Amino acid sequence: MLSGNLIELDALRYTPAGIPVVNFRLSHASEQIEAGDKRAVQCEVAGLAFEREARLIAAVRPGMQVKITGFLAGKSRDSKQLVLHATNIEFVEGV
Amino acid sequence: MLSGNLIELDALRYTPAGIPVVNFRLSHASEQIEAGDKRAVQCEVAGLAFEREARLIAAVRPGMQVKITGFLAGKSRDSKQLVLHATNIEFVEGV
Repeated sequence: MLSGNLIELDALRYTPAGIPVVNFRLSHASEQIEAGDKRAVQCEVAGLAFEREARLIAAVRPGMQVKITGFLAGKSRDSKQLVLHATNIEFVEGV
Repeated sequence: MLSGNLIELDALRYTPAGIPVVNFRLSHASEQIEAGDKRAVQCEVAGLAFEREARLIAAVRPGMQVKITGFLAGKSRDSKQLVLHATNIEFVEGV
């Protein structure tokens, strides 16, 4: 699960099989405990959503705070870049 | 939580404050449901562990199957590369 702000949101598009899909970027900031100390964490993650989740994300305005559950996968077969595939999305502030 | 095989393991080193730290890479493969269909997922993730988790990881042989709980952070302040910071490690096959 990763929470963060939607900072980039592409237009909803469709796969050749007609499945809605949307690409986005999430900016995450939090405080974590590591080696016994508080640590500010900041990262940006590329994301991808299909079907219901794609329509949900495409409907909100950029900047919204969301909580995304999903899985990490390589961007392409031999890529070392990671993409978060959203299987469930929660809106923290309400749409 | 991410499970996978430890495919690269650096030697245990120490921060200037004397905290043990180790860098590793995890290779993950699984089957996920996406857009109603099964999908084979494969990715490689860079990881980092401190203290107890660093000692644990440094003690095992590469190739071990592990389950890592932690958080994602950027590799450095402005980096888009993600690193999984391990806060808990489980050995799937036993050490």
